Amino acid sequence: MITISDIAAQLGVSKSTVSKALNNATDISASMRKRVLETAAEMGYIGRRISGAQKKLCILIENMDYETPNQFGHDIVQGFRQMAEADGWIIEVVPLDMEFQRLTPYGVFMLDHSYQAAFVLGFSLLDPWMQEFKSTQIPTVLYDNYIKNNPYIASVGCDNQEGIELAVKHLTELGHSKIGLISGPLDSYILKARYHAYLSALEKYGLEINEDYIGLGYFVAESTRTYIPKLLDNGVTAILFSHDVRAFSAMTECSDRGIQIPRDLSIIGFDDLPMTAYTTPPLTTIRQDRIGLGRCGYFATGCLLNSLPIGSILLRAPLIVRDSTGPAPRE
Amino acid sequence: MITISDIAAQLGVSKSTVSKALNNATDISASMRKRVLETAAEMGYIGRRISGAQKKLCILIENMDYETPNQFGHDIVQGFRQMAEADGWIIEVVPLDMEFQRLTPYGVFMLDHSYQAAFVLGFSLLDPWMQEFKSTQIPTVLYDNYIKNNPYIASVGCDNQEGIELAVKHLTELGHSKIGLISGPLDSYILKARYHAYLSALEKYGLEINEDYIGLGYFVAESTRTYIPKLLDNGVTAILFSHDVRAFSAMTECSDRGIQIPRDLSIIGFDDLPMTAYTTPPLTTIRQDRIGLGRCGYFATGCLLNSLPIGSILLRAPLIVRDSTGPAPRE
Repeated sequence: MITISDIAAQLGVSKSTVSKALNNATDISASMRKRVLETAAEMGYIGRRISGAQKKLCILIENMDYETPNQFGHDIVQGFRQMAEADGWIIEVVPLDMEFQRLTPYGVFMLDHSYQAAFVLGFSLLDPWMQEFKSTQIPTVLYDNYIKNNPYIASVGCDNQEGIELAVKHLTELGHSKIGLISGPLDSYILKARYHAYLSALEKYGLEINEDYIGLGYFVAESTRTYIPKLLDNGVTAILFSHDVRAFSAMTECSDRGIQIPRDLSIIGFDDLPMTAYTTPPLTTIRQDRIGLGRCGYFATGCLLNSLPIGSILLRAPLIVRDSTGPAPRE
Repeated sequence: MITISDIAAQLGVSKSTVSKALNNATDISASMRKRVLETAAEMGYIGRRISGAQKKLCILIENMDYETPNQFGHDIVQGFRQMAEADGWIIEVVPLDMEFQRLTPYGVFMLDHSYQAAFVLGFSLLDPWMQEFKSTQIPTVLYDNYIKNNPYIASVGCDNQEGIELAVKHLTELGHSKIGLISGPLDSYILKARYHAYLSALEKYGLEINEDYIGLGYFVAESTRTYIPKLLDNGVTAILFSHDVRAFSAMTECSDRGIQIPRDLSIIGFDDLPMTAYTTPPLTTIRQDRIGLGRCGYFATGCLLNSLPIGSILLRAPLIVRDSTGPAPRE
């Protein structure tokens, strides 16, 4: 366990200087404080809560909307907050981007704000801090990401495999045999997982795997516009979407083109956002229980803070059948 | 939701008869009570806690010792108990066998004792209630077993894959290339998982997969006696065991035969039982945090009781390196 003395010795400064820097005292220069925090973080120093100080956790969000109840991240934050605040924690929600991560190491950021642990939402594999998570000793819970072999990191998410298998089973029972996928690019852990779950579900049900049934693209509207006609031309009669918002976009696109859902095309989303029940037609989708994900995130955080090495918590991902799926059209 | 009226209608008896049967009243015959419980269980009736009645959970144990601190199940039960009792639950530990399961359906047993949920330890794939778990609506948490697609069932366990990969990595770093496995038979979910984890770890490290390096047998001492000499004859220099107790047995066998551990043979256990630190030599093993498993079991139970569909919780399974592993002997 790294102590304040170790940091002082490494820097050749007094213990009181290190202590002042870590406690954000006013009588120390900004440059010395920065040196101390960086050295402390590099050495793996974990801030212990000073008695009387606030118990603080942060929720780090990149690339995910969460401010209003209709947005994906909202209920995850709420679920986490409800349980954590009941236990006396102060929760700070911190939206950030890649640039910020490039400028400030994760360890320095956490020490600087005296956060005891973090719950991390929306990171892609390209986020710079993902590299630091491999070796951090700060209790860190990742939603929809996974880091091997680091007992200070836990993961929470939904069972994509089970959810997507249920979706493919539902479509095969409706007579579909050419099932497509429209997804964001595979630079995220979870989109890779859903992509592989899609392939293995097709294989399980003996359906054709064909790259002409798959469309991957970053921009939602643009990739919908490109891939809906392409997949239909290739004989696809049902499409899985990696997110509900992509399925919503497909509804607009189909409406513009006179394609009727589900008569001409069945579609299935992923997430079960609040508005899925009110689209025209209401969307069949795979549910992520987001309040539950937040609660599990907090449970995992508590485990890590108590040295109980949770690796992963997966929620079921049930298929919610509404009206956007129907019998396959006759040839 | 099935009600008392539904059960009464199904049986053609009065609601008060059903209510008496479910509440174990004295003025009803044993045979009528049995009929009511069986019908209620078949219809999927879930006993709601009568106000003022005790809040009861059970831990069902088959084929696992738990009475003393040295036994595998002890700390799992303790971890569960500590958290559950703090929340006001009464916990009853119920050892049972296959014969009992054959005579009494799970649903009837749970209704009969007014248990709200169960934590299930040590079941093999052959246990009759495993079939019932596929469709039960009673919140049920399985240690080291997994049931697909039933939102009333959750699983807790350790990440076998990660643990066994760490073990194989450790052995390859010590120069071992012929690594064996001695395990119980593959009629259990978890032994299957460990067996496949062993195969995939060998593949990952480019090591030879050879059925002559593997010994599967039910009886511990007998299979040790058979397989230790056989594997050594086949050139194996290190053996993974599916449980610490099998590794203990191997130590005795090796001692009898003048085989020195780790000079002649490296061995690795699984579980990290308390006595692993005190064997001669102290055993390198893959740790299962059993207090933590019990705690996670209770967390999952609470989630299911609140309709939060946890699928699985996996703990890390770190490799604890002691003295039973060493450099591979020279040819």
